[in-house]
Amino acid sequence: MLRLQGEMIRGGTSKCWIFDHHDVVATGVDTDTLLLAAYNAADPRQIDGVGGASSTTSKAAIVQASTKSGVDVEYAFAQVGIGDERVEWASNCGNCATAVALYAVHNGLVPLTSDSTTVRMLNINTGARLSGTIPTPGRAAPDAGTARVPGTAALGVPVLLGFEDPAGTSTGRVLPTGHALDTLTGSIGTVEVSLVDAGAPAALFEAKAFGLDGTESLGDFASTVPALTVLRRQAALAMGLAEETDPVSHAVPKVGVVARPVAYRTTDGTHVPQDEYDLAVRMVSMHAPHPAIGLTSAVAVATAAAIPGTLAHRVARQTADGTLRLGTPAGVITARAVPAAEGASPTVLLHRAARRIARAELLVPVLEGRPA
Amino acid sequence: MLRLQGEMIRGGTSKCWIFDHHDVVATGVDTDTLLLAAYNAADPRQIDGVGGASSTTSKAAIVQASTKSGVDVEYAFAQVGIGDERVEWASNCGNCATAVALYAVHNGLVPLTSDSTTVRMLNINTGARLSGTIPTPGRAAPDAGTARVPGTAALGVPVLLGFEDPAGTSTGRVLPTGHALDTLTGSIGTVEVSLVDAGAPAALFEAKAFGLDGTESLGDFASTVPALTVLRRQAALAMGLAEETDPVSHAVPKVGVVARPVAYRTTDGTHVPQDEYDLAVRMVSMHAPHPAIGLTSAVAVATAAAIPGTLAHRVARQTADGTLRLGTPAGVITARAVPAAEGASPTVLLHRAARRIARAELLVPVLEGRPA
Repeated sequence: MLRLQGEMIRGGTSKCWIFDHHDVVATGVDTDTLLLAAYNAADPRQIDGVGGASSTTSKAAIVQASTKSGVDVEYAFAQVGIGDERVEWASNCGNCATAVALYAVHNGLVPLTSDSTTVRMLNINTGARLSGTIPTPGRAAPDAGTARVPGTAALGVPVLLGFEDPAGTSTGRVLPTGHALDTLTGSIGTVEVSLVDAGAPAALFEAKAFGLDGTESLGDFASTVPALTVLRRQAALAMGLAEETDPVSHAVPKVGVVARPVAYRTTDGTHVPQDEYDLAVRMVSMHAPHPAIGLTSAVAVATAAAIPGTLAHRVARQTADGTLRLGTPAGVITARAVPAAEGASPTVLLHRAARRIARAELLVPVLEGRPA
Repeated sequence: MLRLQGEMIRGGTSKCWIFDHHDVVATGVDTDTLLLAAYNAADPRQIDGVGGASSTTSKAAIVQASTKSGVDVEYAFAQVGIGDERVEWASNCGNCATAVALYAVHNGLVPLTSDSTTVRMLNINTGARLSGTIPTPGRAAPDAGTARVPGTAALGVPVLLGFEDPAGTSTGRVLPTGHALDTLTGSIGTVEVSLVDAGAPAALFEAKAFGLDGTESLGDFASTVPALTVLRRQAALAMGLAEETDPVSHAVPKVGVVARPVAYRTTDGTHVPQDEYDLAVRMVSMHAPHPAIGLTSAVAVATAAAIPGTLAHRVARQTADGTLRLGTPAGVITARAVPAAEGASPTVLLHRAARRIARAELLVPVLEGRPA
């Protein structure tokens, strides 16, 4: 039985296992094989592994100190299959980036400074650059904090997460097709879409095209997921993210609907008045409604909402100071765009939280040094 | 942030965290407080803790070496709440007992013998005595094995689990009301029931009383769970397991339906012919269909099927050699009753499997030495 060190860290509303790249290499096992076995991906309940059997709890990041200029830590993000022996390496995860930042300050991957430490990260799946700023008073790495994010009542270490120059990370262009508005044909016929690439590539539709108002509960939104899943593939082709002959990705691009703000209730029953947010959004995570919104999706939505002609711009309340309050099923998440150095798109900042849950030695049922 | 050592072990079709009693005491924190925080029980997704957000993955056992005669290891089993800040201590879990046995041979709680080691266990929730026999060739504790149980394709260390003198563990009588057949009144009116106590207290109904044939899929059986939940409370009162003023337990007694064998398909699609099992059974786990059957429930069903006059006896195919093949949603589980010492009810043996998944240091968000 192979041994592998890892840390289970909550980043925002995701539970991520973080592994050191050198430990993974030292196993001599192909990384996909290792993760599929460690998580028991073959089982929809992941009963024989460390996976949590949901899209937000079947995630991993593999990290290492970086020698690249302006980068402290590189990480590869893995979405590990659930009842599906596949690992998706095509996307980034902002919640896991938050966890990576906390891991980095605890494991000597970045020198600590007083009163806070900024971890400069490179996501090697997408080339995205992120920063995570964590309070480190007295140059001590914190385990506890009082920061909260919508979607969980749990407290954690505050992490200010920045998406640096997010426009065009995956495709080189913020509008990969060159248009703010395209059309795609799916199971509901031809529908308008805005295809954007910022933080993550995303295909954003208007909620009303699906007979929705964009403030649906998770249960009510679920019935639209199959139609969006079909459109995700069409969007991937249109954005140049996949060729016709490639296998279908369930992770790329992000897909969801946007709408004008109207009063709604969050999943936990909290009333959100119409004037307390600027744009309603319901996103898909793999094959199910996302309980909140992925952070890379939040960056894409915020970026789209600032571009005249997109569907998000059409329905979002416009603000003067670069903030955009997104009304998600879990509550309101505020993205703030701040000017960056010349030639770079604005950095998008999000206030997040992370907590180390466990440090572990995993026993992985693969033979050492024997890739499958 | 409090630190606590633990091991995540799969026992059969459950994922259990095993903690050492001395480590738990050393925290200075009330055990319920500790587990609720470690698992993030308050959250239905348990996103800030080690819980797996399902009834079969939100379990713990707290173990210690025993000084009692004929007992190697005592353990307390905890069913930790999911979106519910409560820990149930009222029941035993056979799958976790399997995990406890593997933990015991790995952590010096029992001397190893060649070629196998039997761990004699006392479940302190119910007073049940169990044995777990594990191959230990060369007095070495195994991490890997090739044993399988219905409900998972994963391989594990073979554990022969024995329920010793299981009759009347919780109430002192195998038929707590003195009758093989009782009636209870629930949401569907008055219904026949057999109330038995062996392995666990259980209330067993005939499937046809609910319009079922006992071979329903998990989805189809789910609609009957609310009616059985109401009847569980009535059964608890009838069996003397609860008083009217006690809070409602969702764990005690076990509740389910039995029926004559007919051909069916398991959850993974495997066809089970009518002659390959002896009794159809569909059990409830907390608020949902059990994906297979709890092992203590299997002991109760097997015991009931051997008692003339019970509903299980009425519909089960009778066998001559003490074996009873139970047709569960996950597949067929065989229980074998073997004669025990005089005055004791037959030991019920089940072939199970266990695997250590991870050894961990948990970071628990409670203040050290400060019980809530």
